[in-house]
Formats: sequence, C-alpha cells, structure tokens
Amino acid sequence: MNLLLLRDSDFRSNRNARISDQRVDHIRKILRLSKGDELRVGLLGGRIGTAWITEIRPGRLDVEVAELDTEPPPRLPIELVLAVPRPKFIGRILQTVACFGIEKLTLLHSARVEKSYWQSSVLEPESIERHFRLGLEQGCDTHPPAIELRRSFRNFVTEELPDRLAARPGLLAAQSSPVPFPRQVALPHLLIVGPEGGFLEQEVSAISDAGVTTGSLGERTLRVEVAVTACLSRCLPDPRPH
Amino acid sequence: MNLLLLRDSDFRSNRNARISDQRVDHIRKILRLSKGDELRVGLLGGRIGTAWITEIRPGRLDVEVAELDTEPPPRLPIELVLAVPRPKFIGRILQTVACFGIEKLTLLHSARVEKSYWQSSVLEPESIERHFRLGLEQGCDTHPPAIELRRSFRNFVTEELPDRLAARPGLLAAQSSPVPFPRQVALPHLLIVGPEGGFLEQEVSAISDAGVTTGSLGERTLRVEVAVTACLSRCLPDPRPH
Repeated sequence: MNLLLLRDSDFRSNRNARISDQRVDHIRKILRLSKGDELRVGLLGGRIGTAWITEIRPGRLDVEVAELDTEPPPRLPIELVLAVPRPKFIGRILQTVACFGIEKLTLLHSARVEKSYWQSSVLEPESIERHFRLGLEQGCDTHPPAIELRRSFRNFVTEELPDRLAARPGLLAAQSSPVPFPRQVALPHLLIVGPEGGFLEQEVSAISDAGVTTGSLGERTLRVEVAVTACLSRCLPDPRPH
Repeated sequence: MNLLLLRDSDFRSNRNARISDQRVDHIRKILRLSKGDELRVGLLGGRIGTAWITEIRPGRLDVEVAELDTEPPPRLPIELVLAVPRPKFIGRILQTVACFGIEKLTLLHSARVEKSYWQSSVLEPESIERHFRLGLEQGCDTHPPAIELRRSFRNFVTEELPDRLAARPGLLAAQSSPVPFPRQVALPHLLIVGPEGGFLEQEVSAISDAGVTTGSLGERTLRVEVAVTACLSRCLPDPRPH
C-alpha cells in the first residue's frame, strides 16, 4: 500500500477520516506506522495529498487530512477485454489492471471459460471494488477502471466490439500470431487477452473479422495474469523526463 | 500445466513413468484427462515429447512415453538479481521466472528485506524446485534457472557483481530513473529488481558504481511480481516468423 484511499463516507468532518477495515492491520504491522506519522492519502475518484495519523489501534485508524492538492497520474488509455480467468486468479488481475490505471475492463465469456466462473463471489461488486482499491493503493491512483461483464461472446464480438473499434484499434495477444506483439502499443488501444488454453480458432477468427490485429509474445505459454502484465508493460508510455 | 515434467527417477522402465503427487489431481480435475489420452511431457533438463496415459486414479498417474524428440525452447539469456520479496509472493515469482526461461536467479539481501524472509520455508531447496517445476510446466520448458542466495548486499555488489557485468550489461529497474526502461532489452543482460519500497539511495549508488544503468517503467509503483514480469516482457526476443 503506497496510498490510503478514502471515500467521502470515511470522513467524519471536513478533514478527519476514520477507517476500520483490514488496512489498519497492514498499516500497523507491515508499514509500521504509528500516531503522528505521515501517510499519503487519496480521495476515491479525486485528488491525492498527505495525512497524519491522529489515532491508531487494532481495527481503527483516524487520520487528519491536509489539502488534497495533487492530481492522480494520468489514466492508461487502454480498454482490456479479458476472457474470465479461473476465479482464484481474478482478484490479483483486478488489482493489477487497476494499478496500471487502465480505463476499462470487460470480462468476457468464451468457450474455454467454465460457466461456474461467473458464479464466483470474486465477481460480486463489493469484491471487484475491493480489489480495484488494492490496486489503486499500490499504484497511487484514485480512479478505478470501469468494468463490464459480457456473458455472450458472440453478442459482444458481433454487436459491441465493432463500435468500440471505431474509437481505438484492437490488438489480440495470440501465441500463434505470425506477428510479434508490438514493443510499444500505440495509445489509445483495445487489448484482448484470451482464457487459459486460448480462444478457439473460430473465436480468434470472429475477433479478427471484427477488425482486431494479433500479436505474439513468443512460444512460451504465460499464465493469464502474467500475460496481462506482459502486454500492459508494452502499453505503458515512456515516463516524462525529470 | 501445459507439459508434465518428469525426472529420471519417475521412470519405472525405459518408457513407463509414474507420478503420485498433487499434479495427478490437476490432470484429472482441471485438464480432465483420462486413460488413453495424450499429453505433452518433458524430461527435467532434457527434451520434450508425447506420452499416453495408461492408468489414472486418485493420487497416481502412469504414462507411456513416446520418443522425446523435441528440444525445449531456447533459454532467455537473462540473469535476474532480485531483492528477496515478502515470502507470500516468492513462490509465484519463482514460477514466473522459470516460465520465462531465464538463465539464473540471484536472491539478494537489501536494507528493506526483513531478515525473517530468509527463514521462510518457501526458500528451502524442495520448495524452490517445486515452484520452478510449476513454471516450467506452464512455459513448456525443461531447464530450471540456476539459483543463488546472497545474504550480503555489500559483498555481492562490490565483489561479485563487477565480474558478472564483465560478461553482460546490467540494468536496474528504478522508478526514479530519468531514463525510460528500454522497450527491447539487448540480450544477454543482467537485470536487477529491488524490494518493496525500493533500494535505498546508497544501495542504488553502489549498484550504479558497479556499472549498472537504470531505467524507469513510469510513475506507478508496481508490486514486485508485476515489476518482474513487466521487465521480462521487454526482454523477450520477438518470436521467429512462421
């Protein structure tokens, strides 16, 4: 955690906020902060600043917030369309994409996605929100990605994807592609990553027919979460010189 | 698992091998293979080929191996020097670097590495071997990285690092670097990734003094495992056209 993300509802007065969730433990035991220490805070969807700890005890943290005077980092203008991963990997992937600051995540059904994945509690709104928050607190951002769930591959690819591609080009990470995955993905872009085992051939064709190009990261099959990060690494703009 | 990695000791005869560890469950329940099905196998440190399941039941798998006639993919000529991560993240990182096929992993002490991390059971040889095997089975490789543990930052950086840099250039991922992290890292290379919170300034200076350059992935602070993948993504050679 590199920033404590607060919501409006955490504020008890203009400058004083209280949290009482598992982050208190992390701040006490991992960051080892105590009363009087400074920490970086951000307002969900808003700006970033500094706060001081006015009280910390098991299960409760009170902070006094100084001016929130810094804009969060610019968004990464990437929409990621991702076949629903195995539930045990979803939480970390939600954290990762929030940390990278992507604009939108669409979780998509596909032939190799088990129907049961959609029932997983990790896809409930509170869980998604919590994982996004963890990613933002890692990446020092305050804006979670938008999220959409699309349970019909066919409907998404034929009815929705073409419109989205009118606004930005699309790129599918496909091991079998004859073209290397670009080292610097032009921004904005719509990025598509398949399920474990990959999209079926006819799914790849449908995506390509919609106007999406493909690129390969090489012959080694990466875990989905690793593939997502490997792709996003190549989407990051070069940092501004300072 | 995209390949079942066998050791010499798994063979009960020239062509018949048996395993009886947790992989049997994965093959039954996740891959849903049964008697007569084909699967890809590799010999630890050797070649890759095909096998058929001759018997599968809870806790036991017998396979008959056809010729092992395919070389594993070429190594990624990268040495990674990594400050020891929090133990809960170590296993996944071991898997990831094995999956990418790096040549060598050096786990290094640094001021922000807690001494207790070195006592973690995940750093015992059997655990390291198991996580490397999981990574190789994901990436369809048979060669685990070499691994070295270095408990003195100072000794490593002053006595060992300069020799290693005689053979290959060094690059430190450092958020504060004025230079962008290269989009295509020249091969071979020695890559250095710091701990959560980063190396201390004087540690960065010592590494730089040894002749290592720095590069920044941008202003967002990535989790160590994400940073490792983001860096390795930029080390991958472009796949050969096919």
